[in-house]
Amino acid sequence: MGKKIVYNPTKPYTHRISNLVKKTWQIPELRIVGEIPYTTFMNNSFFYQVDHVDGLGTKGRFHWQARTFKEAVQDVLAMNINDLLLVRARPYKLQDHITLPKDDHEAIIEIVEALCNESYKRKIAVTGGETSIHHAGDFDISISMSGIIKKLHKNKFKIGDVLMGLPSNGLHSNGFTLAAKFLTHNNEFMKPTKIYDEIVDIDKKHGIHGMMHITGGAYTKLLPLLNHADAEIVGFETQNIFRELAKHLTDREMYQTFNCGIGFVFSVDSEVAETIAGEFDARVIGRIVPGSGKVNLESVFTGEIVKF
Amino acid sequence: MGKKIVYNPTKPYTHRISNLVKKTWQIPELRIVGEIPYTTFMNNSFFYQVDHVDGLGTKGRFHWQARTFKEAVQDVLAMNINDLLLVRARPYKLQDHITLPKDDHEAIIEIVEALCNESYKRKIAVTGGETSIHHAGDFDISISMSGIIKKLHKNKFKIGDVLMGLPSNGLHSNGFTLAAKFLTHNNEFMKPTKIYDEIVDIDKKHGIHGMMHITGGAYTKLLPLLNHADAEIVGFETQNIFRELAKHLTDREMYQTFNCGIGFVFSVDSEVAETIAGEFDARVIGRIVPGSGKVNLESVFTGEIVKF
Repeated sequence: MGKKIVYNPTKPYTHRISNLVKKTWQIPELRIVGEIPYTTFMNNSFFYQVDHVDGLGTKGRFHWQARTFKEAVQDVLAMNINDLLLVRARPYKLQDHITLPKDDHEAIIEIVEALCNESYKRKIAVTGGETSIHHAGDFDISISMSGIIKKLHKNKFKIGDVLMGLPSNGLHSNGFTLAAKFLTHNNEFMKPTKIYDEIVDIDKKHGIHGMMHITGGAYTKLLPLLNHADAEIVGFETQNIFRELAKHLTDREMYQTFNCGIGFVFSVDSEVAETIAGEFDARVIGRIVPGSGKVNLESVFTGEIVKF
Repeated sequence: MGKKIVYNPTKPYTHRISNLVKKTWQIPELRIVGEIPYTTFMNNSFFYQVDHVDGLGTKGRFHWQARTFKEAVQDVLAMNINDLLLVRARPYKLQDHITLPKDDHEAIIEIVEALCNESYKRKIAVTGGETSIHHAGDFDISISMSGIIKKLHKNKFKIGDVLMGLPSNGLHSNGFTLAAKFLTHNNEFMKPTKIYDEIVDIDKKHGIHGMMHITGGAYTKLLPLLNHADAEIVGFETQNIFRELAKHLTDREMYQTFNCGIGFVFSVDSEVAETIAGEFDARVIGRIVPGSGKVNLESVFTGEIVKF
């Protein structure tokens, strides 16, 4: 999210698309504020509403083959909830669109059951849904989720901040096209993306300055959070699946495609970092120093520095 | 919509799915009212919010082949806007999810441009979007749209009402799997679904009692709007494309799959019907009589009566 919530910034047509989309934010009756589509409706001064949409992408095909539908539901929920966390939004409703290669009733019911149970627990209403059968197509679940925010916050790293990371549990939901070239499809592929609920508590207790969900684009996603500052990141711990992939790819390819072990990055005042590391499964991975908006990242695979 | 907004009622698993979804409407903090997912958020007493999601379905493949992207955008907007009309909701925001068989930048930009231009005209903000490349998959656009309603209305036919229809311009967006079996793919396929904006004016000036968008399920969709009443429908005018299809299908198959010439049905007091027919491109197609909740429809193809 950050400045790039609407369309994936790694795609070359993003800029043109963003400009088209932003024209619709100029409609005077709808008070759209900020770079992120915070939508607040006329006559409503109680809260900001924020929307997000995401799907399984290429990972859908692997879930379909393995029939790991519960994991697929967690993946798509995570892709939305983790992004809404970045703007401190509490999700309250969603709509789903399930695309299947055949009219598989068991699959549909398993998906909707997992989605509704998890939504109920999280106090998210499922306000609509659609299933669409595309023979010879891929499996995908798209979720459009809305959340509310009481107060708008900046999402920026500050000079002097300590950078911290929350461990991922593997590939999560990105880079599957590339990963499938080098790895045989295995159970690691199917592990669902973590939902980083602890971010709410960390922010409430200790105050987060900047944060990013490490998905497509990986560590290049930190760039919009840097102003006249650089991020210095040490060679943080990784998992075997990334070590396997690193045999076939450059450091740059690794860190601009995969989370490489950390699924969520955030920055805090340096004096609270150790406390947070004690209270949560979070580790210090670097710091924010004066600079010109670059990321300098030490590769755990080679020890070389990758610069974005 | 009506009672069946969440999942397509023609699918056999709908009942099980509906019950799963409705559990999420019991979350006490979210005031969900009615059978239709009118979502109204806590502390907000100004309006009801209603959500809808729909996609291109099988028609997507034909749009992809013909590269009729503007028409595809109108189709998916129509499928959402026409359904929101049923509950008198004014759409104010949407999110899109575009699925493509390849990373075709020209196509993506043409789609987003058409979507944003039409949304701007209609005062709908595009609050988010995602593109997803599924190689060897089908083309689809899914839209999740939100509207507002100031006051909840019943959507029911009344005994004594005159039934009126607004002409379709062909197949619209449903029945493509069946149609493609019998017809060679031609330009008729690509015509976009009409958006029945005139419904707002007809309702404001003359008062609509019950209304239905004739999509998947076609004239069986009138059933939930009948209580202790029957709908008697005359053999209304149709287009050549439906006459061609009727050579291969029974009357029942035709009227439970295709709009057969009328894309939107509504009922009004008998004394205003002729005025409406004079002011709008609307025709009288039947009436509501005492009965037991059935539809009796005279086929224009054979003159026989089809009963639902």
